[in-house]
Amino acid sequence: MLHIVKIGGKIIDDKALLNPSLENFHALNGPKILVHGGGKSANFLSHKMGLRTQIIEGRRITNRTTINVVVMSYAGLTNKTLVARLQAIGCNTIGLSGADGNLIRSNRRPVKSIDYGYVGDLYEKSINIYNLSTLMKVGFVPVFCAITHDGKGNLLNTNADAIASFLAISLSKTHKTVLHFCLEKKGVLRKSNEEDSFLEKMNVDDFRKFKQENLITGGMITKLENAFEALQKGVNQVNIGHPYYLNKSKEKTILCL
Amino acid sequence: MLHIVKIGGKIIDDKALLNPSLENFHALNGPKILVHGGGKSANFLSHKMGLRTQIIEGRRITNRTTINVVVMSYAGLTNKTLVARLQAIGCNTIGLSGADGNLIRSNRRPVKSIDYGYVGDLYEKSINIYNLSTLMKVGFVPVFCAITHDGKGNLLNTNADAIASFLAISLSKTHKTVLHFCLEKKGVLRKSNEEDSFLEKMNVDDFRKFKQENLITGGMITKLENAFEALQKGVNQVNIGHPYYLNKSKEKTILCL
Repeated sequence: MLHIVKIGGKIIDDKALLNPSLENFHALNGPKILVHGGGKSANFLSHKMGLRTQIIEGRRITNRTTINVVVMSYAGLTNKTLVARLQAIGCNTIGLSGADGNLIRSNRRPVKSIDYGYVGDLYEKSINIYNLSTLMKVGFVPVFCAITHDGKGNLLNTNADAIASFLAISLSKTHKTVLHFCLEKKGVLRKSNEEDSFLEKMNVDDFRKFKQENLITGGMITKLENAFEALQKGVNQVNIGHPYYLNKSKEKTILCL
Repeated sequence: MLHIVKIGGKIIDDKALLNPSLENFHALNGPKILVHGGGKSANFLSHKMGLRTQIIEGRRITNRTTINVVVMSYAGLTNKTLVARLQAIGCNTIGLSGADGNLIRSNRRPVKSIDYGYVGDLYEKSINIYNLSTLMKVGFVPVFCAITHDGKGNLLNTNADAIASFLAISLSKTHKTVLHFCLEKKGVLRKSNEEDSFLEKMNVDDFRKFKQENLITGGMITKLENAFEALQKGVNQVNIGHPYYLNKSKEKTILCL
């Protein structure tokens, strides 16, 4: 069983949450991949650099200076900090952007009404399965930040949930694959702020209904879209839940079609 | 023949120099490793972060904020930019800090009269030869920044010349190894600013003499110390020269014992 685990910024920024999350990741049996979001450091750094963070429809507008800032923050500080901590507990991680080993290519998003700048969208053959499988076969545990490349020398900012989902889809051709989206909640909540109202199972119809009722909003919509797409395209299981329960079969939302 | 090529900040900061340097690196036959210094971006970033750059005996004092800045700059922006550009010309690079794959460990420098902070010194078994050889055997070209780790979760700032030298020494046990220190000059100059006064050969006695005569000063002393140490410990050849002549057997300073 191959595990792909996505952790977001809120987990990265909270030490009390991050350390047990990394231990639970390390404890997963079999091949595994960690994908991480950004955390506060990119915003902090942007602020110090005098950049205005501009977000349209949940996506950061990424000009030349902003891509430099997010590469520094995601591929530099966040990625290497996670790798060093995982190495310290005996997990033989290797930190990666999509440029490394040509592992993840993307297309710069075409300019329509909005120019998102250096933002890369994934496509069907984005993942270099051969190089990635080779790395894993010889014993390395990949830790991906959400930076990809276009193969022409440009680094591009890509949604971390989408990277996790595309990795899972691509690798499900050769492995039984479980995709875990970790957040600081037990799963998809029926009542916001009521931790124990999490759904044990959720299907596409529930998702549509909850979206209409505004129970699910913002970034969670994109996350669930990526999650259901993964299930539809061959990933064996997709979970949404708290990293404390990563290695447990319950206490999380398990998605089904 | 295994080639280990070190490029410094001045090459990285000069586009007109960097691009042909990367092409010449790619054109080298056989297995190869690139090691890079920092460039201006760490100083620029430090300035933006309101940090005062403090350098004692050629070494940066690295407090908690400074290590974060150099990790962002070296392991993030500089490393990934080089990797993306090399991938664009078909060189299957993978960008690495010493924490990745547990490839380079160091000891935090003990506090004597000066506390250098998060600075790591290499030791005899710093290089994880097994993991590094495995990566290279399966087809990846390592690109190292000058960040190492202590195996306890801490990232440490390490001299890039020393990393290049230790890599060459460790790998010379299994490969015929050439170590190239690239700079923006043709080699070690007999008369500073007279490009064509470069020495074709230089031995340890010349080095001692030139040091006494103040012909060699500052960072060049450390570089040459690392270079001669590499030769003494089994590296087959050490060159100092301009990246334009990387693939040529002349137009550079070749060191000998």
